[in-house]
Amino acid sequence: MMKPLFEYNWLVREEWFDALEGLTLEELNRSRTGGVGTIRKTFFHIMDVEYSWIRACMGLHDDVLTIDDYPDLASLRELSLKLRQEIIEYLDKLEKKSKDTIILPSWLAGESYTLDEVIPHILVHEIHHIGQLSVWAKDIPVKVVSANFIGRGLGSASNNSSHMPI
Amino acid sequence: MMKPLFEYNWLVREEWFDALEGLTLEELNRSRTGGVGTIRKTFFHIMDVEYSWIRACMGLHDDVLTIDDYPDLASLRELSLKLRQEIIEYLDKLEKKSKDTIILPSWLAGESYTLDEVIPHILVHEIHHIGQLSVWAKDIPVKVVSANFIGRGLGSASNNSSHMPI
Repeated sequence: MMKPLFEYNWLVREEWFDALEGLTLEELNRSRTGGVGTIRKTFFHIMDVEYSWIRACMGLHDDVLTIDDYPDLASLRELSLKLRQEIIEYLDKLEKKSKDTIILPSWLAGESYTLDEVIPHILVHEIHHIGQLSVWAKDIPVKVVSANFIGRGLGSASNNSSHMPI
Repeated sequence: MMKPLFEYNWLVREEWFDALEGLTLEELNRSRTGGVGTIRKTFFHIMDVEYSWIRACMGLHDDVLTIDDYPDLASLRELSLKLRQEIIEYLDKLEKKSKDTIILPSWLAGESYTLDEVIPHILVHEIHHIGQLSVWAKDIPVKVVSANFIGRGLGSASNNSSHMPI
């Protein structure tokens, strides 16, 4: 049941890239209340954390990303699409893995978690930061992206997309 | 894998009730940027939506809640604990249900969804609004509650709680 939630995060992320397209670099880097402090840092942080944990789940060392390599929305979006391929391949194999599989992240000395903790953690992490982005977006202002899971054709097929306060 | 995410939402919700305890009614009802606009409305909305959907999953009509009945944090917290009992009982039965089970919410004329869409929708809904709350909290200011799934003893047992930027 977890893969549709990854797909949800990626869809919402793409819609935010669309919504914020044309934003000036000043707005992208403007210091904002809460979270990691800027829109640019938020996108980078979401992807960095997702990728680091997926690498840890794969039993690989952390492939450290550097924010300076992603100065604008276009480069952030490109990074997002690039990382996704590797993550999708891994998720497709994940179903067969025991949930008790121990994960030892290379960047956390001696700390271990199970797959059953790490996968929900990755998912919750992005949704939380996107919630913060939705407040900042109102201040810019840009049109806020829907946070609905329903109506996106994820999980099973729905017969429509809802316009209700759900 | 979904029940630990409900437990996550409830733990985080409780921690926010704790963090905001002592907040004046003025702050609780102060109009804020984004989301549903006030802290009081956010808590009510989170619970109202969760309960409405769970009732729909149960095949029951919507038991309409009225925000006026919950004027302060204490009454909102009481509502949260009250609704939880019914929701937990339902979630314990949920594992046996087919994911393709059709849900027909009484408040959405003619629209149907599957359990596989509704359950993630409920979960994402709360995490998103809590992300908004975390920005508002910085403005009050009150100490922001951690959004980490990891380190809460949910899913499988972890050997520690992390203090890393994860």
